[in-house]
Amino acid sequence: MNIPDVEIPRIVIIGGGFGGVTLAQDLKNKNFQVVLLDKNNYHTFQPLLYQVATAGLEPDSIAYPLRKLFEDQPNLFFRWAEAKYIDTATNMVETNIGPLSYDYLVIASGSDTNFFGLNQLQKVSMTMKSVTEALDLRSCILQNFESALLTSDLEEQNSYMNFVIVGAGPTGVELAGALAELKNQILPGDYPDLDLRKMKINLVEAADKVLPPMSKQASEKAEIYLKKLGVNVWLNTAVEDYDGEVVKIKNGKSFKSKTLIWSAGVKGAIIEGLADDIVERGRLQVNEFNLVKNQTNIFAVGDVAFMKTEAYPKGHPMVAPVANQQAAHLAKNLVAIAQGKKTVPFKYFDKGSMATIGRNRAVVDLPRFRFQGTFAWFVWMFIHLISLVGFRNKIVTFFNWVYNYFVFEKGVRLIIRPYSRKK
Amino acid sequence: MNIPDVEIPRIVIIGGGFGGVTLAQDLKNKNFQVVLLDKNNYHTFQPLLYQVATAGLEPDSIAYPLRKLFEDQPNLFFRWAEAKYIDTATNMVETNIGPLSYDYLVIASGSDTNFFGLNQLQKVSMTMKSVTEALDLRSCILQNFESALLTSDLEEQNSYMNFVIVGAGPTGVELAGALAELKNQILPGDYPDLDLRKMKINLVEAADKVLPPMSKQASEKAEIYLKKLGVNVWLNTAVEDYDGEVVKIKNGKSFKSKTLIWSAGVKGAIIEGLADDIVERGRLQVNEFNLVKNQTNIFAVGDVAFMKTEAYPKGHPMVAPVANQQAAHLAKNLVAIAQGKKTVPFKYFDKGSMATIGRNRAVVDLPRFRFQGTFAWFVWMFIHLISLVGFRNKIVTFFNWVYNYFVFEKGVRLIIRPYSRKK
Repeated sequence: MNIPDVEIPRIVIIGGGFGGVTLAQDLKNKNFQVVLLDKNNYHTFQPLLYQVATAGLEPDSIAYPLRKLFEDQPNLFFRWAEAKYIDTATNMVETNIGPLSYDYLVIASGSDTNFFGLNQLQKVSMTMKSVTEALDLRSCILQNFESALLTSDLEEQNSYMNFVIVGAGPTGVELAGALAELKNQILPGDYPDLDLRKMKINLVEAADKVLPPMSKQASEKAEIYLKKLGVNVWLNTAVEDYDGEVVKIKNGKSFKSKTLIWSAGVKGAIIEGLADDIVERGRLQVNEFNLVKNQTNIFAVGDVAFMKTEAYPKGHPMVAPVANQQAAHLAKNLVAIAQGKKTVPFKYFDKGSMATIGRNRAVVDLPRFRFQGTFAWFVWMFIHLISLVGFRNKIVTFFNWVYNYFVFEKGVRLIIRPYSRKK
Repeated sequence: MNIPDVEIPRIVIIGGGFGGVTLAQDLKNKNFQVVLLDKNNYHTFQPLLYQVATAGLEPDSIAYPLRKLFEDQPNLFFRWAEAKYIDTATNMVETNIGPLSYDYLVIASGSDTNFFGLNQLQKVSMTMKSVTEALDLRSCILQNFESALLTSDLEEQNSYMNFVIVGAGPTGVELAGALAELKNQILPGDYPDLDLRKMKINLVEAADKVLPPMSKQASEKAEIYLKKLGVNVWLNTAVEDYDGEVVKIKNGKSFKSKTLIWSAGVKGAIIEGLADDIVERGRLQVNEFNLVKNQTNIFAVGDVAFMKTEAYPKGHPMVAPVANQQAAHLAKNLVAIAQGKKTVPFKYFDKGSMATIGRNRAVVDLPRFRFQGTFAWFVWMFIHLISLVGFRNKIVTFFNWVYNYFVFEKGVRLIIRPYSRKK
């Protein structure tokens, strides 16, 4: 891998998501050699992937070149590589570009989509966990309308215009809202020969409310906002199977749809080599110092880490703030370890959660305060903008949002790489 | 194809480039049904593809959704389709989405890369005629440096960092300049463990000057600018073959390079079905009314059309202004034909030509006036900005340019779809 051998300890970080980037940045000018591995050469701002999928933002606005992030950090080496296997006996990571030894290893590999064993559904459904998946979804949505235009079979036409989103967490809710805006404001102009009232957006959720982890107030308001936008919300509705044509529901109901978007679950992106008995709920068990169970020099942070505490008996939520906070905390602990000082257990500071529904509605749960509506939407927009990495991305995103807001436009309705429907 | 049958004549336009779009727009509110076909759902602003390939602009800034262009044009039907065959006997176009009859057919299919029979070279070289090709080139360039980092074989490393651009027309010159800027300002920060002085940009041209169709003054200045940026300019140098590793030159010389970018020639993108004897210099022979030879209702405009006049004995130049002017002229003639009026022969008004070399140098040839340097660059930028379709694209492009100009940055160094090197 052509990383120079040096005297100081080498920390290998797997993953350039929120956790990996924060950790790497916080290790700047510390007495370590830091090697960051990611299967992409960019960091992805995942919370806005749904805007790429619905032609509201350019993919480049939410992806940031990792090398650029670390230009003035001489102790950091980035390698565009996918970690394949961890050999704990020899302290080596195997990757697609060769092996690499570590003194400390930090797994910050994030999460993968969890299909809960629905194999056929997995094969033919769309997901939205990466820039390429979001671009595939953008192509797929636009191609559906091109196909709907061409068929004289009305049932098939409806099926192309029928979208089923499974899972009403923030991703599902935000995607449903953005699709509804496409339906209400954009597509009628693009497809004057189609009756866009036939387009259906079905948001299907197994639980009894949308945004299950949020407050009752937020869930109720979000449902009202979704319905106002024309989204069909199906609660207490568990999807059983999908073959690319028909979505089967547990109670015997079904939808005819060419497009099922699965946002119903995630699981830790676990790398092979660690013992199976340390996996709980699809994540790696770590203690309050983010140390992986039964390991002495392997840590895990963020989505992939399962840290059970009194306050979080089911593990910490799989969201960006946990990854950021654990990473920042771990950076301090690693420095303490190297200096022979005492390490400090992690404590999560929950700043709240939020979701946006369409063009100017959002719901926000703060620890002591809840609000919904237009002001919440401005708060949502502000928080996401200041979190976007890099000045340039902020400006481009801001411009796109302002433009979309005032002219009701989604500028990037491009099918650059057509999506091939799987069978 | 689900196009309604109507009483008024149907004009089918193949291609949504400069010619096709201008013609379709000029037929707004005229007594025709207009069907526009394109293999992409967007118009591509080809003159700026080189900026996409070198990570200076987002692909979405130079691509514009065709449906959006024609939202308020009720007599126009767009279909995302590739024309495969023209059946002149039955007045039908065969496409990948079915057949379509026409009363008048306008071929505005533009041009393809011309490899002049160098088949092996064609297989392994890069081109830059479409958004996807430009994105592949962007990935390829960045992947080369990732690969250069990993090898300890110095010859192989040099080969990854050695770029050969064949053809010093505007495309080759502009690409060479942009690559030189990447080398001088961006890549050293991204790849601190590589010696970027080893990166070579070779611009290879069979003629005895760069920018062969431009004035001697422009060519000489362009060559000086290129050399100042560190580009190696090889004149009177014809490429004979390339196998993915070694570029063979006619005089026995050779370059070891992993990347050959071919910008040495184009030919009309001819659709099957028309008799071979109407093809001249790879283009369809048309008369001064853009009527295809031996046809009564088939026209061709732009790159694909070979119109020989006294002023242009070798046909008109294959550039956007010719396509735009021919299309606008043909729109008027088609209206005249429908009204039984007299048609008027086409006359090209040459407004001049220009090319940019790097960050703030350009050469401009106007009919009565030639200038080069920074002011020329501002003129170049202004002309390209006002030509970009759509307010949004202008703003985003303008912002990217200003940002790049002041902070020496190319923001979109993303490998979104890795390029698979062909063998």
